[in-house]
Amino acid sequence: MSPAIVISVGHVTPQHLHFPDPLPLRSGASLRDYTLVYETYGTLNAARDNAVLVCHALNASHHVAGTYAGQERSEGWWDNLVGPGKPLDTRRFFVIGVNNPGSCFGSTGPMHRNPDTSKVYGADFPVVTVEDWVDAQARLLDRLGIERLAAVLGGSLGGMQALDWSMRHPRRVAHCIAVATAPNLSAQNIAFNEVARRAIITDPDFHGGHYYDHGVVPRRGLRVARMIGHITYLSDDSMEAKFGRELRNGHLAYTTQDIEFQIESYLRHQGDKFSDYFDANTYLLITRALDYFDPAREFGGDLVAAFARATCRFLLVSFTTDWRFSPARSREIVKALVDNRAAVSYAEIDAPHGHDAFLLDDPRYHGVLRAAFERVWAER
Amino acid sequence: MSPAIVISVGHVTPQHLHFPDPLPLRSGASLRDYTLVYETYGTLNAARDNAVLVCHALNASHHVAGTYAGQERSEGWWDNLVGPGKPLDTRRFFVIGVNNPGSCFGSTGPMHRNPDTSKVYGADFPVVTVEDWVDAQARLLDRLGIERLAAVLGGSLGGMQALDWSMRHPRRVAHCIAVATAPNLSAQNIAFNEVARRAIITDPDFHGGHYYDHGVVPRRGLRVARMIGHITYLSDDSMEAKFGRELRNGHLAYTTQDIEFQIESYLRHQGDKFSDYFDANTYLLITRALDYFDPAREFGGDLVAAFARATCRFLLVSFTTDWRFSPARSREIVKALVDNRAAVSYAEIDAPHGHDAFLLDDPRYHGVLRAAFERVWAER
Repeated sequence: MSPAIVISVGHVTPQHLHFPDPLPLRSGASLRDYTLVYETYGTLNAARDNAVLVCHALNASHHVAGTYAGQERSEGWWDNLVGPGKPLDTRRFFVIGVNNPGSCFGSTGPMHRNPDTSKVYGADFPVVTVEDWVDAQARLLDRLGIERLAAVLGGSLGGMQALDWSMRHPRRVAHCIAVATAPNLSAQNIAFNEVARRAIITDPDFHGGHYYDHGVVPRRGLRVARMIGHITYLSDDSMEAKFGRELRNGHLAYTTQDIEFQIESYLRHQGDKFSDYFDANTYLLITRALDYFDPAREFGGDLVAAFARATCRFLLVSFTTDWRFSPARSREIVKALVDNRAAVSYAEIDAPHGHDAFLLDDPRYHGVLRAAFERVWAER
Repeated sequence: MSPAIVISVGHVTPQHLHFPDPLPLRSGASLRDYTLVYETYGTLNAARDNAVLVCHALNASHHVAGTYAGQERSEGWWDNLVGPGKPLDTRRFFVIGVNNPGSCFGSTGPMHRNPDTSKVYGADFPVVTVEDWVDAQARLLDRLGIERLAAVLGGSLGGMQALDWSMRHPRRVAHCIAVATAPNLSAQNIAFNEVARRAIITDPDFHGGHYYDHGVVPRRGLRVARMIGHITYLSDDSMEAKFGRELRNGHLAYTTQDIEFQIESYLRHQGDKFSDYFDANTYLLITRALDYFDPAREFGGDLVAAFARATCRFLLVSFTTDWRFSPARSREIVKALVDNRAAVSYAEIDAPHGHDAFLLDDPRYHGVLRAAFERVWAER
């Protein structure tokens, strides 16, 4: 027997950067005295032209790849993609993961103190948007001495950030790779977010968003929110294949309150886990950032006009069974780019896993990304 | 100006029937000293061969058609279908609507007193199944002196009851008309039900299902449950057409807790309304009845074997944009019937309204039902 070969960036350590200057936000408010947590993998070359920014989605963070020393199962959320020899190869690229403000994984968020009042922000944390996050990321790059990204990459909400980079910071991005994303949320998407938010906000332990002061967490609401989310991440087919109508105990117990079916057990487990680590105010903020993203809005709904600002190359990837951000939504983006005569590639991957597919290592999907980063490397 | 012509069965009055004999239930428990509330429209003919039973779905009742004297907007839930000159013509047929036990609209349910303990049932109300409901309906027909139904009709969960009639009481049904239904729930269907139940059960006002004793109602949970349900009743497209990304106040307020989008306002309104009239224990019971329905189970998963017992004619109807019970699910039933050489017609209606379409009066849909009831009449 040969030992398993682990190809990983290895142990990583998050970095912190403090930003004293206020960050102006789309809402008109601003965020001051904030900190961003980030990680980097690989080495920035002398020409400083090999940097790739990875933008995170709802419940992820700066911890994209590698592990934390002494912590088992601490792999980064996109560890299957980022590392030496992996599609986003850290022997070539300098990869940056950054936690967005408002999140609950280290960057300044609702559980931190408001410098104006010395009180924990809670529900008073300013509403943040995809554009605000991208501006914060741009400042981080300034501090890291990176003028231009070889590529910006993101999936889902992360894909929206990648698209925003291409439109509002066109000179700073050579390639935009946006996976399983959409030009905005549909009414149904917003509806699911709203139900999740209502579950959180109407949890008596929410206390208007100032639950930290009461020493409680709106765990019931978070559980329900996560369960709803999970249903939308998986395809109908993959849920059917994985759980079907399988009973937990092999026979019916005839109960309305206890578990009968395996799918119930799975969802409850996901909800419980999530409520142990995720912050409720962050959930509200991030789902709102999703709702608000709509680059066509300021162009009278014209997505073609919105993308007229972009100059980079694009790769869009979608998954056939993703009903949260369906291929049709990616095709809207592709069409707007083609209408702009932009350089755009599009891959529609026939994968069974629904929206979650963007986090999995389907060989066709990773093949597409590997080829894309070959091109990014060649054209940097 | 001519007065509007109202074609309706007019004012109706619910009837009550008490059943002293215990109803054995699938769970092994039984229900004793129970009452069924029902309504009838039209006249039972001398041959007693013109009776049509209408089975209700999740939040409907015995009140299928007509209005209640002195109550505005009290039309029955299928008033567009049932009445003089309507597709189910009450000048010909004797139509029966019955409220299922466990419901909250009059028949014995969780808010009534358990004759064994003299306490309100609450969470102790026995778990009921589609089969139990059909058995209760059969006893009602016995009391009404109806040996054989000209037709049994239902949509969604009501369609499951119609299918069960065809399989377990084959000699008592001439035609089975099942609309927007499924041979069982998928994992995704169960998942949505489970999230709704968790929202209710984890509401602190639920008190383990004995909230009546505390003078409260788990309104928060009911609201969330209904909001989730509503998303699954509407198609993605119809939600988009009706609400899209329209803002309630024309501009963004940048708020996580207040309403920004019209779809949020709509969903909250639906949730509020529902929590005013629906019972939480009933919601649990009825979603469980949905989960449990699976006639193929006792035949080793073989739906063909399950339907081998049926002898009636069938009409199955589905709607193209229904993603809760998609046309594919109706086609499973049709295939099992065809494999049995049963007499089956199938209509797949190209309607934009999702699952809700079965309650609306799309002319093609109602045309199909009108033709079906012509045949029921001719063949009675």
